[in-house]
Amino acid sequence: MIAFSSGNHAQGVAHAARRLGLTAVIVMPSDAPALKIDNTRAFGAEVVLYDRVEESREEIGARIAAERGLVLVKPYDEPQVIAGQGTIGLEIAEDCARLGIAAADVLVPCGGGGMTAGIALALEARAPGLRVRPCEPEGFDDATRSLVAGRRVANAQAAGSICDAIVTAMPGELTFPVMARLCGPGIAVSDAEALAAMRAAALRLKIVAEPGGAVALAAALARPAAFEPDRPVIAVVSGGNADPAMIARALAG
Amino acid sequence: MIAFSSGNHAQGVAHAARRLGLTAVIVMPSDAPALKIDNTRAFGAEVVLYDRVEESREEIGARIAAERGLVLVKPYDEPQVIAGQGTIGLEIAEDCARLGIAAADVLVPCGGGGMTAGIALALEARAPGLRVRPCEPEGFDDATRSLVAGRRVANAQAAGSICDAIVTAMPGELTFPVMARLCGPGIAVSDAEALAAMRAAALRLKIVAEPGGAVALAAALARPAAFEPDRPVIAVVSGGNADPAMIARALAG
Repeated sequence: MIAFSSGNHAQGVAHAARRLGLTAVIVMPSDAPALKIDNTRAFGAEVVLYDRVEESREEIGARIAAERGLVLVKPYDEPQVIAGQGTIGLEIAEDCARLGIAAADVLVPCGGGGMTAGIALALEARAPGLRVRPCEPEGFDDATRSLVAGRRVANAQAAGSICDAIVTAMPGELTFPVMARLCGPGIAVSDAEALAAMRAAALRLKIVAEPGGAVALAAALARPAAFEPDRPVIAVVSGGNADPAMIARALAG
Repeated sequence: MIAFSSGNHAQGVAHAARRLGLTAVIVMPSDAPALKIDNTRAFGAEVVLYDRVEESREEIGARIAAERGLVLVKPYDEPQVIAGQGTIGLEIAEDCARLGIAAADVLVPCGGGGMTAGIALALEARAPGLRVRPCEPEGFDDATRSLVAGRRVANAQAAGSICDAIVTAMPGELTFPVMARLCGPGIAVSDAEALAAMRAAALRLKIVAEPGGAVALAAALARPAAFEPDRPVIAVVSGGNADPAMIARALAG
């Protein structure tokens, strides 16, 4: 089994592989937090680092998979990954049914769109009045622009955000059609807004989020004009792979 | 309604008072985290600060209650507080039933013993093979020593730990008999061990704990000799009122 890293995907695959007694090789950008690299190795996986700007993880993954006879698990363009991340949508639907919320915007941190598409599919089935809106870092708002364009468009650059886990070139082949059919407009936030959301998450919600995991909360807190009055807003906080220095930077405010 | 502060008790009372449209006056030691004082005021409560060493909160509370005709809500020697905090024990019993755990040590951060006694009572009813063990800061291990002595004994000092929320003079009148009947031996941890547990909670569990809320996790991580081999250990992490500087101190490791 070989996996690309995306958000918590790397650790998830490494953990699953260990439970199943399989080999796991994780291809991860070299700017990933040290904590994430260490935790992935702690699950027994081999971590192959690559340069996000100079190298292609798709090529590296394909080569290693061919050389060693491993199965490639992509981070978002993979039906089972989309379905797995979609369970977050099942939980949201369940909570909203209990709370009597039939219509709301559901903000989701978006890289390649696996979690976004998965949650959108789950809500389509279980809570069709809830609409997913992808949230991204400024400068890496490929999903937002692709939704406007009606086709997949790429980011101009490959690196340069603290939101490392959701920096991807463009929406996936499988994920984009789902997003185009089901999602509302995307929202892009600045690194400073992501850090402020990390701080709010730590001090008010008592949870540690990484910058990319906090972009949906950042959109909810910093972009009131993006929402209809009186329509509930639900933000998914996903991913806590922040190094101590990054958490301290967010807390410094 | 007037309440003494203890752990998250202050904010809970302030929140409940606002929902019910009642006046809340919270008596809180002046060494409480600024975050906790601010959050309590944000719930609309009046906060009266006192000096933990020089003044008696019992006297201050009794005086204000008499002057203004308010009902006093004590932080731990209050049956409904004990019952409310005991719901943590109901959740533990439910989780353990699902996981097939019939015997375990349940480590609980302990100040005056409200949460400790409440959880112990809930487990007695729902999971009698689980045994509560109070965890405290070194130098403020009144519950641990009281359990050994078979009677309530006090701490030598009134202040001097970063675990502000669980620094109390001695176990409560109502809580101690419950603890004496149901609890196993207490465990005291150092401030450094509490900080290391805060760090582990942030980096591995992705939750923000305050020092006093992390003492049970600290005991689980730092005191292996205190436990029987192969017996599961469950640690309650309760309280996240840590100022940014305290979180940063823990993360610095």
